[in-house]
Amino acid sequence: VQTRSPLELVNWTNEEGARFAPAMMGSGVWGGEFDLEETYAATDREGVTVRQGLESLGEIGAAPARSFPIRAALEIHIEQGRVLEAAGRQIGVVTGVQGIRWYDLVISGSACHAGTTPMEERRDPVRLLAALLDAVYALAEDAAPWSRVTFGELRADPGSRNTVPERLTVTIDLRHPEQSQLDAMHARLRAIVADQDSSRASVALNEVWHSPPVVFDAGCVAAVRRSAERLGYPALDIVSGAGHDSVYVSRVAPTAMIFIPCRDGLSHNEVEYASPEDVAAGGDVLLGAVLELDAES
Amino acid sequence: VQTRSPLELVNWTNEEGARFAPAMMGSGVWGGEFDLEETYAATDREGVTVRQGLESLGEIGAAPARSFPIRAALEIHIEQGRVLEAAGRQIGVVTGVQGIRWYDLVISGSACHAGTTPMEERRDPVRLLAALLDAVYALAEDAAPWSRVTFGELRADPGSRNTVPERLTVTIDLRHPEQSQLDAMHARLRAIVADQDSSRASVALNEVWHSPPVVFDAGCVAAVRRSAERLGYPALDIVSGAGHDSVYVSRVAPTAMIFIPCRDGLSHNEVEYASPEDVAAGGDVLLGAVLELDAES
Repeated sequence: VQTRSPLELVNWTNEEGARFAPAMMGSGVWGGEFDLEETYAATDREGVTVRQGLESLGEIGAAPARSFPIRAALEIHIEQGRVLEAAGRQIGVVTGVQGIRWYDLVISGSACHAGTTPMEERRDPVRLLAALLDAVYALAEDAAPWSRVTFGELRADPGSRNTVPERLTVTIDLRHPEQSQLDAMHARLRAIVADQDSSRASVALNEVWHSPPVVFDAGCVAAVRRSAERLGYPALDIVSGAGHDSVYVSRVAPTAMIFIPCRDGLSHNEVEYASPEDVAAGGDVLLGAVLELDAES
Repeated sequence: VQTRSPLELVNWTNEEGARFAPAMMGSGVWGGEFDLEETYAATDREGVTVRQGLESLGEIGAAPARSFPIRAALEIHIEQGRVLEAAGRQIGVVTGVQGIRWYDLVISGSACHAGTTPMEERRDPVRLLAALLDAVYALAEDAAPWSRVTFGELRADPGSRNTVPERLTVTIDLRHPEQSQLDAMHARLRAIVADQDSSRASVALNEVWHSPPVVFDAGCVAAVRRSAERLGYPALDIVSGAGHDSVYVSRVAPTAMIFIPCRDGLSHNEVEYASPEDVAAGGDVLLGAVLELDAES
């Protein structure tokens, strides 16, 4: 096949961010989110810079690391969740990426002796946590099915078996693919925290990150959907729950993504697995969408 | 004053247990709870044994470290809580020591991605914790005012902001001065854990320590109460929430304790404070009780 537009195959540098932070570094520089020199200067735990790492591999090229006009960008990825597997579909037509808000919740009480302090005299942050948890989980139910509420870290200080904790530190991760819904969850979270009885313990909510939802280009998404239909692969519209290079690419080019199933939803794990059949199906859909978008160009 | 019985003044070795475990070491050996040679062999973090520590101080005496018949034992101590201060009383007539049960609660779910995993697919241990906390706190309300429920340690593993935790580890400390009530709290805790929906996460409850309640000798307690009355100090019957040397002494001799107020209930802290007036009042009550018990002997 001779395409009308030239094709570029990209494997973005440091998508994962495991050695050098932040993640999605290559696409972030290309898409204008990150400054090139600051990114080159990022270091790993041993103090090695990104520039040194790339030079040692002979991978620091001469082409400028910045975007140029392109017709469309398509990315294929394993789902990293169980949605396609549970639905029995082979192709995920990714319509966008969830927005994310990250918070630190600090509940401060008074450390005191577990034996000598009557219950009514305590300022026990765990008690206030108990009141908060159900209310915050309800945010997810009220914005189902695409909302996500996660308490990933919980820590009690000083963390002694016979002492009421002085302080609980809890992280909250809220996600939703629609900005209006994510904003509503944010407002309700703030209201829940403000409603707590401050005589029982005090609560501070600090937002540490906000990544707005991404809605992919309608034409590119439609090309992926039609490609799966033509090829007869059972497909499902899906919103990505994880960040991907396409988030940054989509800021400067029409973009969409294709997902394939992830066994048991296990990802970032030695047992992560996609079947050869699903990998081939994803490649077929990608090729079909590329050719359709090229024909329209 | 010439007493009929001889008096012994005791400052028990290593009540606190800060350098060598366990706490209440001297009274525990004297009262028969701990073996002498095993106790001598206990080491601090640098590997120094109790025997070496005592020898280096010249404090390893020749008298045998075991109990002998005595008429009565009285101990005076700062309350380490706020009960006397809140009640405006100067003397605590300590009728016994709370029983304690310690547990490790391990809630096991499945670690998964905070973005890609729908809420209904999750086995989220924090969600199960939310259901448990209120039910366990209710144990304290139902056995008020002497019951205590404390969650001192909470930890999420792996403890990553964008990952549903695999596992929560929580400690529970239950206390009550009456064995029957403490046993009822224990049985209800086990029932609460057994009632949890295991499809949401699995829960394991492991009891790691059980210290039965101690009821002090009625004659000694009455002597303390009468002494306070005679001297005109406002007194209150109180149950100790912390362990003390008298727990072990009471196993081999009639025993009671006297508490004096603790400013703001703060103990094990640089600001721990008892006023000179309260210290003197406690000493007066101790002397009066000793003389009464001596006169009865």
